[in-house]
Amino acid sequence: MNEEIKIIGIPNFPLIKNGDDLASIIKNKILEEKISLDQDDIIVITQRICSIAEDRIKNLNSYIPNTFAKNWAEKYNKDSRLIEAVIQESKKVIRKKNGILITETKHGFICANSGIDNSNVAGIDNICLLPLDPDSSCRIIKEKIKNEMNKDIAVIMTDTFGRPWRMGQTNIAIGISGINPIQDYVGKKDIFNRTMNFTMICIADEIASAAELMMGKTKKMPVAIIKGYKYEKNLDTISRIVRDEKNDLFR
Amino acid sequence: MNEEIKIIGIPNFPLIKNGDDLASIIKNKILEEKISLDQDDIIVITQRICSIAEDRIKNLNSYIPNTFAKNWAEKYNKDSRLIEAVIQESKKVIRKKNGILITETKHGFICANSGIDNSNVAGIDNICLLPLDPDSSCRIIKEKIKNEMNKDIAVIMTDTFGRPWRMGQTNIAIGISGINPIQDYVGKKDIFNRTMNFTMICIADEIASAAELMMGKTKKMPVAIIKGYKYEKNLDTISRIVRDEKNDLFR
Repeated sequence: MNEEIKIIGIPNFPLIKNGDDLASIIKNKILEEKISLDQDDIIVITQRICSIAEDRIKNLNSYIPNTFAKNWAEKYNKDSRLIEAVIQESKKVIRKKNGILITETKHGFICANSGIDNSNVAGIDNICLLPLDPDSSCRIIKEKIKNEMNKDIAVIMTDTFGRPWRMGQTNIAIGISGINPIQDYVGKKDIFNRTMNFTMICIADEIASAAELMMGKTKKMPVAIIKGYKYEKNLDTISRIVRDEKNDLFR
Repeated sequence: MNEEIKIIGIPNFPLIKNGDDLASIIKNKILEEKISLDQDDIIVITQRICSIAEDRIKNLNSYIPNTFAKNWAEKYNKDSRLIEAVIQESKKVIRKKNGILITETKHGFICANSGIDNSNVAGIDNICLLPLDPDSSCRIIKEKIKNEMNKDIAVIMTDTFGRPWRMGQTNIAIGISGINPIQDYVGKKDIFNRTMNFTMICIADEIASAAELMMGKTKKMPVAIIKGYKYEKNLDTISRIVRDEKNDLFR
């Protein structure tokens, strides 16, 4: 038997509405679709369904653009209400150029437009903000599965962010529960039995990326399950992955 | 039957030596280990085995440090020969701070130390440089598998790079053959049947990350196979993923 990791999608996932109990819906779909959920599986969910369930869909008309938002929108032919929303969801603007705003969100993530999405959102002029506390949203799902299905699993919430240097976005982790997001090889032996000094792999982001291959953007598949991957369990939060400004060469 | 993507490792992979025919070794190991290789599978390989086979292991004593290398090494307690190698492998230094050199390699990749690795390399004072032409190395493997196993597959070469903003490295693509590395949703319909304007996903990097979950850093598993993922075949090169300076907000 070869070693293998599997990425499984949950088919026929319902459209999520404001106020939905996401943890119960995920549990029920796993049962209905007869997906075998094993101890140590990792459930990966998109930010979007969580934002919808947690009342993070907002109408642009609820934003009153400030002067910066008005000027920026006029200069680059953008919606000034959206710019205002981006500013309100940010702690800091990191770069602004050619009409693009790269901001630091209140969680500490650095991304375009404070992670606000206006595709895959129902309703005219509606936008989707990031969940307020993605770790906590993950923990609720983890605990539900533990309590009602008696499986210890990990949960990762994901979103697709762009990067400097490279074209295209990749899916990364924005919330975690029950998993050490960093595989730390420092002090471990390499294949020639010598001690490694530097290598730390952000497996949470790699798992997010793996899951996106299944979830896609046009398939209605916002939840995937990773099976067969060994990880360390702990109580880390997503802040473990957020690089602080002092150790960041590009701020 | 649920939709699933599998990540399979090739066990018992031999240590690679300079001059080895990597394409033949991969083919033979697939046969020996009785791994079912299917049409459209993706073979993912680490940069390291390719560098070894292609004579890209160099001894530090072959580098004569220039003035910058000497000063930088002295200031930050580094090996001046390694700094010289980093400079020689680079097109440009993008950031230098706290002893860290972020460079643009001759391929256009932006990473620490021009991608030079000194762990997992046999021999004292030996370092591992990136392959000169990763796309071409991928293409040779792809063609061998096509000609001798009659399967049309894609090949991706990977390395682990750090990122701004986020802790830990992730595995990304540095060479490709037979795959469109970008899944472009621009103009496609979202789940509410509206046209998307911005989304482009770098699936090549996501596949690289997925494969790393299997390959790890201490396992002798430098080759993984991704099965069940649908991608577009084309003749793109890795340059498709390299963001040009003009469109990069952080250079």
